[in-house]
Amino acid sequence: MNDNTSSPTTAPVSTAIPTPVTLLGAGAMGTALARAWLAAGHPVTVWNRTPVRAERLAAEGAVVAASPAEAVAAGRLVVLCLLDDASVGEALDGADLTGRDLVNLTTGTPAEGRKRAAWAAERGARFLDGGIMAVPPMIGAADSGGYVFYSGSSELFEEHRATLAVPAGTEYVGADPGFAALHDVALLSAMSGMFAGVLHAFALIRREDIAPGDFAPLLVSWLGAMAPMAHQTAAQLESGDFTKGVVSNLAMQVAGNATLLRTAEEQGVSPELLTPYMSLMERRLADGHGEEDTTGVVELLAPRKG
Amino acid sequence: MNDNTSSPTTAPVSTAIPTPVTLLGAGAMGTALARAWLAAGHPVTVWNRTPVRAERLAAEGAVVAASPAEAVAAGRLVVLCLLDDASVGEALDGADLTGRDLVNLTTGTPAEGRKRAAWAAERGARFLDGGIMAVPPMIGAADSGGYVFYSGSSELFEEHRATLAVPAGTEYVGADPGFAALHDVALLSAMSGMFAGVLHAFALIRREDIAPGDFAPLLVSWLGAMAPMAHQTAAQLESGDFTKGVVSNLAMQVAGNATLLRTAEEQGVSPELLTPYMSLMERRLADGHGEEDTTGVVELLAPRKG
Ligand SMILES: NC(=O)c1ccc[n+]([C@@H]2O[C@H](COP(=O)([O-])OP(=O)(O)OC[C@H]3O[C@@H](n4cnc5c(N)ncnc54)[C@H](OP(=O)(O)O)[C@@H]3O)[C@@H](O)[C@H]2O)c1
Ligand SMILES: NC(=O)c1ccc[n+]([C@@H]2O[C@H](COP(=O)([O-])OP(=O)(O)OC[C@H]3O[C@@H](n4cnc5c(N)ncnc54)[C@H](OP(=O)(O)O)[C@@H]3O)[C@@H](O)[C@H]2O)c1
Repeated sequence: MNDNTSSPTTAPVSTAIPTPVTLLGAGAMGTALARAWLAAGHPVTVWNRTPVRAERLAAEGAVVAASPAEAVAAGRLVVLCLLDDASVGEALDGADLTGRDLVNLTTGTPAEGRKRAAWAAERGARFLDGGIMAVPPMIGAADSGGYVFYSGSSELFEEHRATLAVPAGTEYVGADPGFAALHDVALLSAMSGMFAGVLHAFALIRREDIAPGDFAPLLVSWLGAMAPMAHQTAAQLESGDFTKGVVSNLAMQVAGNATLLRTAEEQGVSPELLTPYMSLMERRLADGHGEEDTTGVVELLAPRKG
Repeated sequence: MNDNTSSPTTAPVSTAIPTPVTLLGAGAMGTALARAWLAAGHPVTVWNRTPVRAERLAAEGAVVAASPAEAVAAGRLVVLCLLDDASVGEALDGADLTGRDLVNLTTGTPAEGRKRAAWAAERGARFLDGGIMAVPPMIGAADSGGYVFYSGSSELFEEHRATLAVPAGTEYVGADPGFAALHDVALLSAMSGMFAGVLHAFALIRREDIAPGDFAPLLVSWLGAMAPMAHQTAAQLESGDFTKGVVSNLAMQVAGNATLLRTAEEQGVSPELLTPYMSLMERRLADGHGEEDTTGVVELLAPRKG
């Protein structure tokens, strides 16, 4: 189901005549996408609910469509970059999608991706969902590290791969149209945890004579060095043996948490960002899994369906 | 106050006769430390409460002391690696510390480090506190990335720098004896947040046909790419301007959180590891800071002393 690789790849730019792109949505992200395709020589037709944002792109070579239906009629490849899934439904209501290739870069949930794929199939369109792992300044910038998760029609993906690779790297994660959103949200959720930890760390040093700018490099290299522990977590989840390769077991880690909490208290920092994870570790320990790694917390967050 | 650099350094091994080291504590970490010094030719005197653990090291060349007082009498440089701060007080109760250089690698809080430094000064000893950013298998292994934060007596640190650099890299973070523990705990706290996020991410994909081993590399590179955002957080904290360099402001991020929560619900995953950070973001937004970065959360965790 899943042919992803560890590093997202950018396909070589095709030497054929660039594929025309229709783009619905000229917000911050849509505008960045339009500019990347225009810069690479792709004819771009753009529609935006508020016309002024699309008109700005006309000066850069885009054709402005007066309605979504008109934009969709302009070409086979139709990229959507609107606020949310509901705005996609609204914008395309009544447009003839027969024979179109819809690439939906609007952020949504996995279930929305799946429903939207079925909706597109009913209307005679092929469908690819996307999850953008980049901010607008990274779009069209070579080696920015930004990329897009794609899932859904592999035929659509293969056919438009070169065009899709223009604004950012591409990472196809499977035929299930929910997988792009799932990968996107999973990575953003992990990042959210990391940022919460980072903010707690800065709060701890806040009242001390420690410059945040001296501290940040230590934090960044530590997190970079520890992130690969996720490979061990993956191996444990795949084998079902959560003691595999453990160095500091759950019992040791729960004991160590006390120092983290006492330090927060000493420094006058609320422990609220740390305690939920610690509580889960304690529950798992109380269930008799002290010899395991912390991986068992996954069991508490998402018990396997009986 | 703080002369740390972005990457911890390992001092070149001295060509002089290796300094004798007294070590109190032959647990998992103490044993690894002893082995590293023995391997580098340092005479090692070791004491452990339960004698059998010290005796194992005798076979490898260490001298076993019958009591902490006897161990301390064997040499000037005394390294402590016991369970917690209370065990340090217990072990050294009654020992003559006059003229000794105490290096305390026992994990503790910043306040414990400061109290222990005052306690050592009263007994005529110089004091350096340490926070070990490594697990035992990384000790004595070249390029393992493991290192130790040191703070307290800079004279002691400079004098014993080469010896201290044998088991792991060294990172001196200031004369305040609480700073080693503070840096240690701050990095561990940030890591704890990151791991919580990683476990949530694995929980999200758990019931899907996505191999954890295919997902982990994406997660690891994403976290590695996003960790450097901490540099921007530091710059914002230093300037006091939390809008500096913002790409996705707080208002946009709070809106985006809804997708993370709906996805967790769809996937049957408890949101408990995500919600505390989201709540803080919402509080800050409600306070009228929608144009800022998420850095303002630090204000809520640790308000500046009025
Ligand atoms: N910006 C980022 O950093 C980033 C990163 C990753 C993913 N994304 C995703 O990319 C998508 C677009 O984001 P953005 O940053 O471009 O947002 P934005 O600047 O707020 O633009 C939103 C776009 O959606 C349109 N829209 C909103 N409601 C609509 C409706 N009911 N019908 C038709 N159009 C509607 C807006 O049209 P008007 O101009 O008429 O308001 C505008 O074109 C979102 O799903 C976002 O999650 C953004
Ligand atoms: N292991 C790691 O991954 C790691 C990483 C960073 C920092 N550290 C820190 O290193 C220190 C030692 O950890 P460890 O892994 O070596 O732990 P350990 O294997 O559990 O060993 C604990 C040591 O403390 C001694 N001890 C406990 N209570 C004592 C008391 N009241 N009086 C005298 N000695 C006492 C034990 O002696 P007995 O043999 O008699 O029980 C043993 O030598 C801790 O502060 C820990 O937080 C460890």
